[in-house]
Amino acid sequence: MRILGVDPGSAICGYGLVEGRPGASSFVAAGTIRAASLEPGPKRLRRIHENLLAIIDEYIPDALSLERHFVATNVQSAFRIGEARAMAMLAAAERELPLFEYPPNEVKLCVAGHGHADKAQVKYMVRKMLRLDAALELADDAADALAIALCHLGRGRLPNLVESIERVASRPPAARPRKPRLTPQ
Amino acid sequence: MRILGVDPGSAICGYGLVEGRPGASSFVAAGTIRAASLEPGPKRLRRIHENLLAIIDEYIPDALSLERHFVATNVQSAFRIGEARAMAMLAAAERELPLFEYPPNEVKLCVAGHGHADKAQVKYMVRKMLRLDAALELADDAADALAIALCHLGRGRLPNLVESIERVASRPPAARPRKPRLTPQ
Repeated sequence: MRILGVDPGSAICGYGLVEGRPGASSFVAAGTIRAASLEPGPKRLRRIHENLLAIIDEYIPDALSLERHFVATNVQSAFRIGEARAMAMLAAAERELPLFEYPPNEVKLCVAGHGHADKAQVKYMVRKMLRLDAALELADDAADALAIALCHLGRGRLPNLVESIERVASRPPAARPRKPRLTPQ
Repeated sequence: MRILGVDPGSAICGYGLVEGRPGASSFVAAGTIRAASLEPGPKRLRRIHENLLAIIDEYIPDALSLERHFVATNVQSAFRIGEARAMAMLAAAERELPLFEYPPNEVKLCVAGHGHADKAQVKYMVRKMLRLDAALELADDAADALAIALCHLGRGRLPNLVESIERVASRPPAARPRKPRLTPQ
């Protein structure tokens, strides 16, 4: 199964493709779609849309995984994030790809083991999980997009993980279940 | 000059086409693009995008006029409005139409003479300015879209109007300048 993860920002849109299954995923491609800072909104959105369609047509993913935002620094920022997210949603619909959305803390939980991991921790774990060569440069937004793709690839195990965390919280330490973790050993 | 006005909502997207010049505008077409309430986001956006492109290809407007929102009831609502707005922005970029954006109070000022007009006043003035037959049904969102199109058509006179309002505020009533108003006589 090949997953395209998309991290839609107002200026830079990260994308990352992974394939495989939970615990045995491999890197396919990753990068960023950048809009010139002076490019007006409509042209920027067209660039994101065209590039996403080209990426889908080149790599033929089975699904698109997208970060679902719940907060924004302000309403204008929310409008802009909504605009960029819409390009990924539209591209998924046009290529009839199933779309899955994950909140940021779920993405962080999936790859770094806790929902409040910072960007550096997410990037470190993404590189480790995908066994990326140290020489391979990876932009922050591309790493985030790979994390979003890995989150979908690992979702089959996520309910167990969440369940085990809930059990840990309600039981004494001795009863901690030894369930497999999503984070690599 | 023919203008396509778009009022992008999260469930219903209004559109309206007018042509002419300030004070001598005529109705071309108007309507709404409706998404089934249960339709998921990506399919809804694809429907809006496809319909807007079809409308542009049928009526060949010279520009697209879009409402620029500054407030939303909450962040989730802002994300959804941003997604729908993005479809209009993308369609404009794809058909290389110049895009103009107006805040809601400027649209109301243009058609109803004051920035806090309610929906009924806007609709009444849109019907009057375009000399619409009383038998022609006009959905609220279609009327709003026509108002947004009329706002762009009348923008050549708007700076004068704003300037005259500022002068009125700073002068005694006797000095009130008799400038032409945007609202029909």
